[in-house]
Amino acid sequence: MFAPYIHSLSRSPLFTHSLNEHFHSLKHNMTKDIETTAEQGGGAEFSAKDYHDPPPAPLIDMEELTKWSLYRAAIAEFIATLLFLYVTVLTVIGYKVQTDPVKNTIDPDCGGVGILGIAWAFGGMIFILVYCTAGISGGHINPAVTFGLFVGRKVSLIRALLYMVAQCLGAICGCGLVKAFQKTYYNSYGGGANELQDGFNKGTGLGAEIIGTFVLVYTVFSATDPKRSARDSHVPVLAPLPIGFAVFMVHLATIPITGTGINPARSFGAAVIYNQEKAWDDQWIFWVGPFIGAFVAAFYHQYILRAAAIKALGSFRSNA
Amino acid sequence: MFAPYIHSLSRSPLFTHSLNEHFHSLKHNMTKDIETTAEQGGGAEFSAKDYHDPPPAPLIDMEELTKWSLYRAAIAEFIATLLFLYVTVLTVIGYKVQTDPVKNTIDPDCGGVGILGIAWAFGGMIFILVYCTAGISGGHINPAVTFGLFVGRKVSLIRALLYMVAQCLGAICGCGLVKAFQKTYYNSYGGGANELQDGFNKGTGLGAEIIGTFVLVYTVFSATDPKRSARDSHVPVLAPLPIGFAVFMVHLATIPITGTGINPARSFGAAVIYNQEKAWDDQWIFWVGPFIGAFVAAFYHQYILRAAAIKALGSFRSNA
Amino acid sequence: MFAPYIHSLSRSPLFTHSLNEHFHSLKHNMTKDIETTAEQGGGAEFSAKDYHDPPPAPLIDMEELTKWSLYRAAIAEFIATLLFLYVTVLTVIGYKVQTDPVKNTIDPDCGGVGILGIAWAFGGMIFILVYCTAGISGGHINPAVTFGLFVGRKVSLIRALLYMVAQCLGAICGCGLVKAFQKTYYNSYGGGANELQDGFNKGTGLGAEIIGTFVLVYTVFSATDPKRSARDSHVPVLAPLPIGFAVFMVHLATIPITGTGINPARSFGAAVIYNQEKAWDDQWIFWVGPFIGAFVAAFYHQYILRAAAIKALGSFRSNA
Amino acid sequence: MFAPYIHSLSRSPLFTHSLNEHFHSLKHNMTKDIETTAEQGGGAEFSAKDYHDPPPAPLIDMEELTKWSLYRAAIAEFIATLLFLYVTVLTVIGYKVQTDPVKNTIDPDCGGVGILGIAWAFGGMIFILVYCTAGISGGHINPAVTFGLFVGRKVSLIRALLYMVAQCLGAICGCGLVKAFQKTYYNSYGGGANELQDGFNKGTGLGAEIIGTFVLVYTVFSATDPKRSARDSHVPVLAPLPIGFAVFMVHLATIPITGTGINPARSFGAAVIYNQEKAWDDQWIFWVGPFIGAFVAAFYHQYILRAAAIKALGSFRSNA
Repeated sequence: MFAPYIHSLSRSPLFTHSLNEHFHSLKHNMTKDIETTAEQGGGAEFSAKDYHDPPPAPLIDMEELTKWSLYRAAIAEFIATLLFLYVTVLTVIGYKVQTDPVKNTIDPDCGGVGILGIAWAFGGMIFILVYCTAGISGGHINPAVTFGLFVGRKVSLIRALLYMVAQCLGAICGCGLVKAFQKTYYNSYGGGANELQDGFNKGTGLGAEIIGTFVLVYTVFSATDPKRSARDSHVPVLAPLPIGFAVFMVHLATIPITGTGINPARSFGAAVIYNQEKAWDDQWIFWVGPFIGAFVAAFYHQYILRAAAIKALGSFRSNA
Repeated sequence: MFAPYIHSLSRSPLFTHSLNEHFHSLKHNMTKDIETTAEQGGGAEFSAKDYHDPPPAPLIDMEELTKWSLYRAAIAEFIATLLFLYVTVLTVIGYKVQTDPVKNTIDPDCGGVGILGIAWAFGGMIFILVYCTAGISGGHINPAVTFGLFVGRKVSLIRALLYMVAQCLGAICGCGLVKAFQKTYYNSYGGGANELQDGFNKGTGLGAEIIGTFVLVYTVFSATDPKRSARDSHVPVLAPLPIGFAVFMVHLATIPITGTGINPARSFGAAVIYNQEKAWDDQWIFWVGPFIGAFVAAFYHQYILRAAAIKALGSFRSNA
Repeated sequence: MFAPYIHSLSRSPLFTHSLNEHFHSLKHNMTKDIETTAEQGGGAEFSAKDYHDPPPAPLIDMEELTKWSLYRAAIAEFIATLLFLYVTVLTVIGYKVQTDPVKNTIDPDCGGVGILGIAWAFGGMIFILVYCTAGISGGHINPAVTFGLFVGRKVSLIRALLYMVAQCLGAICGCGLVKAFQKTYYNSYGGGANELQDGFNKGTGLGAEIIGTFVLVYTVFSATDPKRSARDSHVPVLAPLPIGFAVFMVHLATIPITGTGINPARSFGAAVIYNQEKAWDDQWIFWVGPFIGAFVAAFYHQYILRAAAIKALGSFRSNA
Repeated sequence: MFAPYIHSLSRSPLFTHSLNEHFHSLKHNMTKDIETTAEQGGGAEFSAKDYHDPPPAPLIDMEELTKWSLYRAAIAEFIATLLFLYVTVLTVIGYKVQTDPVKNTIDPDCGGVGILGIAWAFGGMIFILVYCTAGISGGHINPAVTFGLFVGRKVSLIRALLYMVAQCLGAICGCGLVKAFQKTYYNSYGGGANELQDGFNKGTGLGAEIIGTFVLVYTVFSATDPKRSARDSHVPVLAPLPIGFAVFMVHLATIPITGTGINPARSFGAAVIYNQEKAWDDQWIFWVGPFIGAFVAAFYHQYILRAAAIKALGSFRSNA
């Protein structure tokens, strides 16, 4: 989720600006035009803009392939997705065992963590795993996030593909561990697989996945915007927390509809280990939906909020 | 909720003060009078005050209308309010489906996320949406917040009206999506509309809305006070988190009374899509209550805590 | 909880230190002795210590009485305690109404927010109210916290007494509002009053209040230690969040024993409005327990962790 | 968890770099090689690397024994582990009392805080206790964390052993308090002791403890990496929060399997006070599992993510 190389760029001017430049930007800001710094071009670029857009990531960067940091990042994505599926699916299965009125006689009603607990497991794991891997891999842990950042030209094609493979393998291994630990119950309690619930048609499921992934990827783009640390320095960039909360929120809303995918690796890994027809039949929803949602979020952020389209056509303001 | 242009103003002096001025303010602060910096006027203004009040927003600022940033902010408010209603009302309906003893035979008791989960959905969505839109629109997502900030002269009349229209349209679209996805249950489970619950009279409902909105808008004013970053630099301004928690808390307390509005766009959007007589009959409570609460919070913050009234009459201290 | 005037003191050197001093403190820190900066006295005080202990607050400071900031702080404590009791007791009563099997026929089992939701209400309100009032009054909202900070000489006697009166009055008004809003159920559901539950003797109740308040006041002292921002600058001082969590945690543990007081104003306000014999009989527990707990926490922090006693006797290290 | 002496080292260059060096590192970072600063050796070390690895802690440091700070740290670990066990085990016992259908007639179904509340108690207490003790002892509160940091050469052998003794004594005292307060129910509700649940074999229990502790210690290493504040300055190091969440998450997943240990002091203290055969028979799982998990996490962080092995063999990149 984070392109680590851009941030010392965007931050450092806050500390290196001379007093003189500060007073300049002081007066400047008083005019109450948050667009100005973004729109004016020309000479004194460094002192007038207090953030820097990184250049778009190349599609294919062969030099990247020679660096240990790329492979280390893929390992970190693999381990993180493994831990994500292990903890979350184990929570789902454990909850169903506890609340099964047949198997469980002591505490039939409220023994489990509830759907609220399951939603916390998904959101909380994303919070800590993004926190842990942000500096190593950018903390994607989700092919839809990787796709969104590729669309936004934040990662190269090679890195994106390698991450997606690592995420899917990690998800399979994580679910495999849960099946090994909970063999009695794994299949009988649905294996944590995403399936369309009764009473919902495929269009609704697809729509729920699109909007859910939009919420997540929109939060990711907002949290990692290089413009942010400059313009919004009053909103400290505690990025992993809102990203985790976005996952938590979407699970509260859509567990009753699709079980909540918004992460193709999560849906794919569970389907491979569970391996029942229904999970495979619905699998396309959990790839097509998240990828559309991520694409729309990338478009919304880059072309509407960052106004890249407007800037390309010439400044709206100078025309007005 | 944030007036973005003020913050580089209030922050930068922390880094640009010369050593000399620091020792000055050191000795100065030792006198343990947190009022001093605020009350003294006169010459050496820049070194003695380490924050700056922005000038009040103009009522009508025609130049604002020519800027893309205004329309972009309205789009961001529209999308954010749409996502807010979509996730929260979907959570409410999903919860009721799961706990309906007739429809649901597997998990009749504790299947849903509970009222606690519903309160989390409202509070958590505000947390992430304020985080995402703070730098674009100020992160209002609520006509009562916009009204409070207008009363406190933080936004112009034009911006306030445009935001409120965008918020109401967004709320209608968000509820419409939920109805499209949950058509079987949407109307039979109340459509997420705010209504006075049985056993409470209109005065109680109005009171609950006034105090609940006061808690929210008071938190918003506290979190975005330009004085804050200077005086309370020890309390990092992680503004979206307490604002989200304020919404969470008020929902825990008042869901049993009114279903908790404290956001006229949320109540209006649900009423439009649900469109039942009871929801429309009570609608005025969810506009009058929040607007009164926001007004009182703005007054409390500006005239009691910031002591604007006292300063206007001459310093209390210099009289003593 | 916060003595606002000390922080620009303790922070600013981080930014004003010359390069020279930084290299000095670099080599210095490499010796891995976190005591050094605290224990060495003598000449080059400003560059060697990177924090400053404020002087102890005077017992009685007549000049304080002439300042508007004192009365404004008392008003803020009054409003904050009012809102605290209003939201939390309303949550408690609402929960009991919903889970009453006689009154409530639709959702008899899991309708309410649960004890978990009640614990969140108490902890979450403290989080947002400490956040909002930290810069105005120090964010006590609790006579036991005020007492602990008085023992630690962080506030004067006059300020401590004025705060306690404001807190108790605020608590009474907050509970009064709940009774006005929930008149049918307020008394029949216990009024949110603290009472010793069946099966526990007075010694256990007192012990639970002492340890619970110790956890809270220990967190308050840790979060506001002026040494902290210097020595632990890697642990950002997001003080209100752990303080809120401390309240949340203690409620999870001791609601089954005493209903959890750890705040004499909260217990007193509920007892005044509920006004039943049992609540008054047990009232002393909810004053004596929290005050003992706060005293022990202040002693532990000032004499064990800050090693004030050791320093008074001469440095342990220079003796060794 | 924190080696306090390293951080002013790693932070200060951010503020002391001259403008010149900033432009240097600007161009430098633009090459998008996050390895560079770590891998290049040689002359201009201070300006090229913007963080510093502390030297490994000595195995035995006799001078440490003469310092008050060591004993104060042990006291802080003792008190923190005592409070940790007191609050968490009291929550566990209170929950079981409330949900016992025989003892409790008013609220038989959902009276307690639920497994979700128990998981919050464990995670939330770690959050606040790490926050409170980070600056005094490094905030371990867990022999497995101490062992992991010893393996990673962050603490000396003497300090590690002293901490473990303090943690075990604290855990015993904390559980003893719970037994004193809840004597009627303590033993009949399992005493909060960790035992393998029915239906799981010892291998599964051991595996669950290994992976659970891996999640925790991996988070601890990520949060306290000296490289972090430099490379990931965009991910603010709010270390105690993700560490607390890691504990929360693991409890959600593995309470149904082992009751969740991942902390040998917690398991040992409960076993000593509960003192039943089953708890002692399974005790080895709760020491061997966490120590293996901590070892693997230390190895993963130091040799894979920090690439210590690669660097020892010569840079991967310069070979390529």
